[in-house]
Amino acid sequence: MTVVLKVGGSVLTRKSEPETVDEAALGTVAEAVAGALAGDSPAAPAAPAVGDLVLVHGGGSFGHHHADRHGVTRTAGLHDASAITAIHAAMTDLNATVVDALQGAGVPALPVAPFAAATRGADGTLALATAPVETMLEEDFVPVLHGDVVAHAGEGATILSGDELVVALARALGADRVGLCSGVPGVLDEDGDVVDQVGSFDAVAGALGGSDATDVTGGMAGKVRTLLDLEAPANVFGLEALGAFLAGGNPGTSIRRDR
Amino acid sequence: MTVVLKVGGSVLTRKSEPETVDEAALGTVAEAVAGALAGDSPAAPAAPAVGDLVLVHGGGSFGHHHADRHGVTRTAGLHDASAITAIHAAMTDLNATVVDALQGAGVPALPVAPFAAATRGADGTLALATAPVETMLEEDFVPVLHGDVVAHAGEGATILSGDELVVALARALGADRVGLCSGVPGVLDEDGDVVDQVGSFDAVAGALGGSDATDVTGGMAGKVRTLLDLEAPANVFGLEALGAFLAGGNPGTSIRRDR
Repeated sequence: MTVVLKVGGSVLTRKSEPETVDEAALGTVAEAVAGALAGDSPAAPAAPAVGDLVLVHGGGSFGHHHADRHGVTRTAGLHDASAITAIHAAMTDLNATVVDALQGAGVPALPVAPFAAATRGADGTLALATAPVETMLEEDFVPVLHGDVVAHAGEGATILSGDELVVALARALGADRVGLCSGVPGVLDEDGDVVDQVGSFDAVAGALGGSDATDVTGGMAGKVRTLLDLEAPANVFGLEALGAFLAGGNPGTSIRRDR
Repeated sequence: MTVVLKVGGSVLTRKSEPETVDEAALGTVAEAVAGALAGDSPAAPAAPAVGDLVLVHGGGSFGHHHADRHGVTRTAGLHDASAITAIHAAMTDLNATVVDALQGAGVPALPVAPFAAATRGADGTLALATAPVETMLEEDFVPVLHGDVVAHAGEGATILSGDELVVALARALGADRVGLCSGVPGVLDEDGDVVDQVGSFDAVAGALGGSDATDVTGGMAGKVRTLLDLEAPANVFGLEALGAFLAGGNPGTSIRRDR
């Protein structure tokens, strides 16, 4: 059982305050992951172990403010080495804090900086080297990747979103399950209620017309589109449901293309 | 013209004092690299531009003390995620300082953490993903890699030396020249004099009997062996000759297998 879990930047940080970690939320994530790996999830004590777990986290207030200031997106790049390095450093700082919290809870987490492993072609296609992550999993570690910058042919460097990493990892590793722990409890319909299942984009297109205006890495509409393209079933849920997801449940919104 | 240049940890740091950068030496390196990229090397004003340049630096006092404390080498690994992360963090701290100094001198340097891009098989063979470095070069950046830890099948994580990175990069990029800027002015014979040229290991085996006892990543004997296996000609020289090497000269010891 291979699980790719992304914890959104909006869960781990306070987006309104630059580079501020939400320590309570981070602690909740660390405890949930540690509990699932130990097989003692209160939500499902007899659930099978998670097995191989890869974590990805977004940038939240660490990455987005830098990206906004420099006008860099996933398609519009930068050639300013200092600015690129500053965005990368903000993300690795957050990653170090996340990895430290996980290790403190007993999770054998290791930091993985995608800037060193990923590249984008001139057409925007992402290539991610996953051999290091695969070896870490075989050795019973929990690799922790993060939204980052990426060298981009013809553009210098652009933004690499956590959502893109989730897709690349799920495909390369043949993930059995994908989870997106988000700032909202799932995909919401026009009334603000959680949609149980999404099997096609059209079914929720109306409710997902807009994305978070300040989020250069894509809002819910983009997440749903990319998750529908995966072989693996995916769930979008809030922090309160992370334990249930890791225990094998299907909280929030289940996303899998109708077939 | 693609050049792979390693600056030894013993040049950049004070090995006797843990995690102390030799700021003067680092400044000298940064100015020499900046001058070579600008084509204004005083040593050879009309020399062709360096073209694509990849930098690698060793750990010096940043990496070795951690490695020694945990008993980890290139073959004997660790499964302790906190210890692995501490070694990695010490190396990325040094890398950030090196990248910052280079940028300050006008070099478009970018940090590349090999832990995210490399893996070792059970037989110790290193695989390094170099696509990100190649894209950075195409975009006129100067990638700066560093000695690091690496996920190792069956061993957890082991040490990845700067010398190993030089070999992997030179091969993958088809480098035209390789330089090792070292704490000594070249390969020394039994009398302590610099050997001009080395074409086989046997010719210098007597003088290279021992390696630095405290250096888990291999001393001069290991460097000579690996450089002899490269297609590209290599030079080992001291900091005072870095400008001359970057200007196209062959300072210190030239190493290329007799053929």
